Amino acid sequence: MKSYTLNELAAIVNGEIIGNTTNIISGAEQLDKANENQISFIISNKYLKTWDNSKASVALIDKKINAKPQENRAFIKVENAELAMAQILSSFDPGYPKFDTHSSAIIEKTAKIGNGCSIGANSYIGKNVIIEDGVTIYPNTTILDNSRIGQGTIIWSNTSIRERTIIGAMCIIHSNVSIGADGFGFRPSEDGRSLVKIPQIGNVVIGNGVEIGANTCVDRGKFSSTTIGDGTKIDNLVQIAHNCNIGRSCIIAGTTGLAGGVTLEDGVMVGGGVSIKEQCTLHTGSKIGAGTGIMNDVPAGKVMLGYPAQEAKDMLKEWALIRRFVKDFNSK
Amino acid sequence: MKSYTLNELAAIVNGEIIGNTTNIISGAEQLDKANENQISFIISNKYLKTWDNSKASVALIDKKINAKPQENRAFIKVENAELAMAQILSSFDPGYPKFDTHSSAIIEKTAKIGNGCSIGANSYIGKNVIIEDGVTIYPNTTILDNSRIGQGTIIWSNTSIRERTIIGAMCIIHSNVSIGADGFGFRPSEDGRSLVKIPQIGNVVIGNGVEIGANTCVDRGKFSSTTIGDGTKIDNLVQIAHNCNIGRSCIIAGTTGLAGGVTLEDGVMVGGGVSIKEQCTLHTGSKIGAGTGIMNDVPAGKVMLGYPAQEAKDMLKEWALIRRFVKDFNSK
Amino acid sequence: MKSYTLNELAAIVNGEIIGNTTNIISGAEQLDKANENQISFIISNKYLKTWDNSKASVALIDKKINAKPQENRAFIKVENAELAMAQILSSFDPGYPKFDTHSSAIIEKTAKIGNGCSIGANSYIGKNVIIEDGVTIYPNTTILDNSRIGQGTIIWSNTSIRERTIIGAMCIIHSNVSIGADGFGFRPSEDGRSLVKIPQIGNVVIGNGVEIGANTCVDRGKFSSTTIGDGTKIDNLVQIAHNCNIGRSCIIAGTTGLAGGVTLEDGVMVGGGVSIKEQCTLHTGSKIGAGTGIMNDVPAGKVMLGYPAQEAKDMLKEWALIRRFVKDFNSK
Repeated sequence: MKSYTLNELAAIVNGEIIGNTTNIISGAEQLDKANENQISFIISNKYLKTWDNSKASVALIDKKINAKPQENRAFIKVENAELAMAQILSSFDPGYPKFDTHSSAIIEKTAKIGNGCSIGANSYIGKNVIIEDGVTIYPNTTILDNSRIGQGTIIWSNTSIRERTIIGAMCIIHSNVSIGADGFGFRPSEDGRSLVKIPQIGNVVIGNGVEIGANTCVDRGKFSSTTIGDGTKIDNLVQIAHNCNIGRSCIIAGTTGLAGGVTLEDGVMVGGGVSIKEQCTLHTGSKIGAGTGIMNDVPAGKVMLGYPAQEAKDMLKEWALIRRFVKDFNSK
Repeated sequence: MKSYTLNELAAIVNGEIIGNTTNIISGAEQLDKANENQISFIISNKYLKTWDNSKASVALIDKKINAKPQENRAFIKVENAELAMAQILSSFDPGYPKFDTHSSAIIEKTAKIGNGCSIGANSYIGKNVIIEDGVTIYPNTTILDNSRIGQGTIIWSNTSIRERTIIGAMCIIHSNVSIGADGFGFRPSEDGRSLVKIPQIGNVVIGNGVEIGANTCVDRGKFSSTTIGDGTKIDNLVQIAHNCNIGRSCIIAGTTGLAGGVTLEDGVMVGGGVSIKEQCTLHTGSKIGAGTGIMNDVPAGKVMLGYPAQEAKDMLKEWALIRRFVKDFNSK
Repeated sequence: MKSYTLNELAAIVNGEIIGNTTNIISGAEQLDKANENQISFIISNKYLKTWDNSKASVALIDKKINAKPQENRAFIKVENAELAMAQILSSFDPGYPKFDTHSSAIIEKTAKIGNGCSIGANSYIGKNVIIEDGVTIYPNTTILDNSRIGQGTIIWSNTSIRERTIIGAMCIIHSNVSIGADGFGFRPSEDGRSLVKIPQIGNVVIGNGVEIGANTCVDRGKFSSTTIGDGTKIDNLVQIAHNCNIGRSCIIAGTTGLAGGVTLEDGVMVGGGVSIKEQCTLHTGSKIGAGTGIMNDVPAGKVMLGYPAQEAKDMLKEWALIRRFVKDFNSK
């Protein structure tokens, strides 16, 4: 376990020490659960009362907050509390579990495995798969034929990656993810009495530095590719349908669904529980609030909210007006 | 297969026999699908007509319903139909599949496995994992380093449990669940052009008697723990983000999403398809209707509904008023 | 890789050739990404401009569109563009990955495996399971005791199928699916202080030609069966709770949730992100728009929309009227 003195921690975040403590700090914890060997965080004045009863010896504190720690306790004042907290967490990060490639992993002869890779117990690497250097694949993962996994990428356990998927470098694919499943495409049979599957012969192409949350699904293209751009981060339980094209540095929160052929340009942010209709384009930098139902294209930079969606400022006005109208009516 | 006489079944539920049958009962089935060796359930008067055409020889019947079975058929009248049905289902329960620890399971040398455990084919138990007595782990499950699984807990197949997860006794974790994946936390890079991952160094701590539905995700804490209290039941495809704190005996229905840092106090009930905004607290015994979008704290005992949420009684009034207003307008 | 001449492609779709090309076509691609050895699709006039700058040598074109290709390029005019596209995709379909049953698959002695089956690496086939002829099971899949998988069915990797599940012929079950997990049923304990699990002793019965999307969950019946009729297609991340009865040729889009005991009659279409309340019946051919919350039965053929749902035409009027009312109010 990593541990630091007060001075070492202050140096990590380039902060100013208020008070002092001789206690060694070996972890980060919430104020109410911390012990005397832990650092905690005071991001607003309301946490100062909790500090008084906390056992934490050190707290990171925003430079705008003025307070004194008690005896043998200290504050570290910082400019940017969010950044400093990330730096502290990095300092205590125990890292992901490490292991050597396990003898129970099944690797087809035609697969190429780079240097410094770890392939976990009972994982399967299919024919002609290329695993570049430094890739970590946790146990019980399946990577099917002709896929390629870029340098330094991490794939967590029980994830399924279908044939011909291309994943870039330095990605994190969490557990139980499905990448490359068939798109959802059917047409009525000639007699109109049943549904015929439309072949889904495309694939999935994921850029560099992408993170894909647990149990999320990214379907393959009907033809051509479903694509996810560099640096995009997708949360858990998200549905990305066939032929979506997601730009760079987008953020998509949990339980959201994108129907077929949706385009997100660069830097789009989508909240949780959102539904986006097929073929819609969300232009650069647009933002979609949680629970929103998008049924049309969204212009660049616009903030949308509600079901059906409109600009957030209008939606908030509408909601307020309706509630006022209902209140007025009821008081008549 | 277990089978019972009419008298034995009546004794199980402490019920009163009306009519008689000599048929042996070896299972429970819906009225319309049952055969003469099955028991069925009549929970309201409208099912009496179905009974007339059913082949079931016995039906459990609420004491408030007055009716006569036909020849060689019988009713068992009970005080509490719901409880009695559960007792009957228990009587016919064939139990979960049983098996011995399989030679293909990979168990690291430093893992400790208790007495009477079953570890399924191709499962992986990581370094320093502690599996207490009587735990059942179905095939293709992954449990990573330094986790602990409490006594009598059952973990279904293809579930992923990340490092340092603590799960209590007598829990049921269903299939394809992801526990302990990284929380969804990023900050803008210094140049504002990309997103930097915030380390997620916490873990997940689950109490006793918790049930977690298939394909549900419980993310680890950014630091400290994501917690789920004793006796809480979570349905399928639910997202529990980093640092949520869920109390005891809560119920969360399917496809619901809790954003980061949401608190549910004890006995909170959340319907299906609900979204809850980050950092919101739902106080003791509050109830959230299906499809609701929660954007603020909910006081103890309140019943909330709608998007955006308000008290259910007000929401229902608002919906009715709007529909009346629209109808009036259209008829002008 | 399969490749075709212009004449061969025109014969496949029974289309009329406009222009000519000597290039051999070995794949299908979007206009903007295609190279000179690929065919593309022009489904409306607005794509004609993209064609001018595309490198594709051939495009399938709807008979209603009048245009001329450039030199050494050709159009194939067809009656039914959707059908013709499906035929072209079939022509280039490389097929699913093929493999022989792997020695690392664990097959219990009492399981019966038909002819021509492929069982992937590290999969598990439980006691008394019956796998009919021509079934393909990809790696890391789990099929528990006494289940039956029908002829020609394909089960993708990391899927979990619980005991006593019956799946028909020619189905496709995608990756990370959970079939047969316990229904979500609890009752208050006698002292009212906790929740007691109601045994879930039923199973899941799936018909022929059914497709079930990645990470979807189909829970087993409390007693009796959760059923899915022939030819029904279910998308990714869908929740089908215990004792749902889904008819034939239904379509259910992604991230939708059906609560316990919901009935869909034949040919019902449900959009994405829908919630359906327990015990509701959606009668034959009804259609539910994306994001809708269904709280009551839906008559045959009706189209429903909104939260709470009403007939789509009324909901659209209501939305329009409210926005007009808000606009009028704000302009006063």
